[in-house]
Amino acid sequence: MEKPFSLAVKAVILDAAGGCLLIRRSAANLHFVGMWEWPGGKVDSGEDFATAVVRETREETSLEVEITGLVGATHFEMPKVNVILLCMETRIVGGEIKLSEEHDQFMWVPLSELTRWPLPEQVAPFMLEYAKRSISAGHT
Amino acid sequence: MEKPFSLAVKAVILDAAGGCLLIRRSAANLHFVGMWEWPGGKVDSGEDFATAVVRETREETSLEVEITGLVGATHFEMPKVNVILLCMETRIVGGEIKLSEEHDQFMWVPLSELTRWPLPEQVAPFMLEYAKRSISAGHT
Repeated sequence: MEKPFSLAVKAVILDAAGGCLLIRRSAANLHFVGMWEWPGGKVDSGEDFATAVVRETREETSLEVEITGLVGATHFEMPKVNVILLCMETRIVGGEIKLSEEHDQFMWVPLSELTRWPLPEQVAPFMLEYAKRSISAGHT
Repeated sequence: MEKPFSLAVKAVILDAAGGCLLIRRSAANLHFVGMWEWPGGKVDSGEDFATAVVRETREETSLEVEITGLVGATHFEMPKVNVILLCMETRIVGGEIKLSEEHDQFMWVPLSELTRWPLPEQVAPFMLEYAKRSISAGHT
């Protein structure tokens, strides 16, 4: 029997200049303190994945976003669960950035500079692969 | 306002020899009749994606499967909805193949021969990319 598979989501919030929003994990977290990430989290039981993208972004940044496309999916193991992380491209439709206690800084980072930031190791290769693909496609 | 995003799932059922199960869409379908595909379908409202993988596979093939890993995600547009298709690797844990009326044939196809089969155009590049990656990784 495999560990159960659980769905989490991330929102890549893009700005007009080809940057994405990174937020830094605060000391309120048990893991990956100081690492920079895209907003997101677990899909609640019974919740639609698209609703979760919007809700998690709102909870973590106070921004209202709308999904515009797919970034892709990646997989990593946690002690008790296999996490499938589904990442969506989004754009801001309202709100101003106000972080929750889970994060203590935010930064708009050009995708071409993502390599310079400390990213959580479980998702860093996936994030950098997306950045590379976007740059090749001329989106930035 | 974008079209809403909706989640669908597919099960890549792998056999010991590195083949995957393809099933052919019957004339009972409105679209893509005669095309070969992996089992799967829409995630129901309130349903967990992993439950949907197992349920759709059971409904379409009578096989009981267990998820073992991630294939990846792809995106295509339908007239009223943006479909995010999340594909999972699975293995058989019970049952024998019996198709529903939605499909009229099945075949175990080595990933290296996937190019020879008529695949639905919306997902064919994604399926072939997975096959290529798996072959490069020496899984077949």
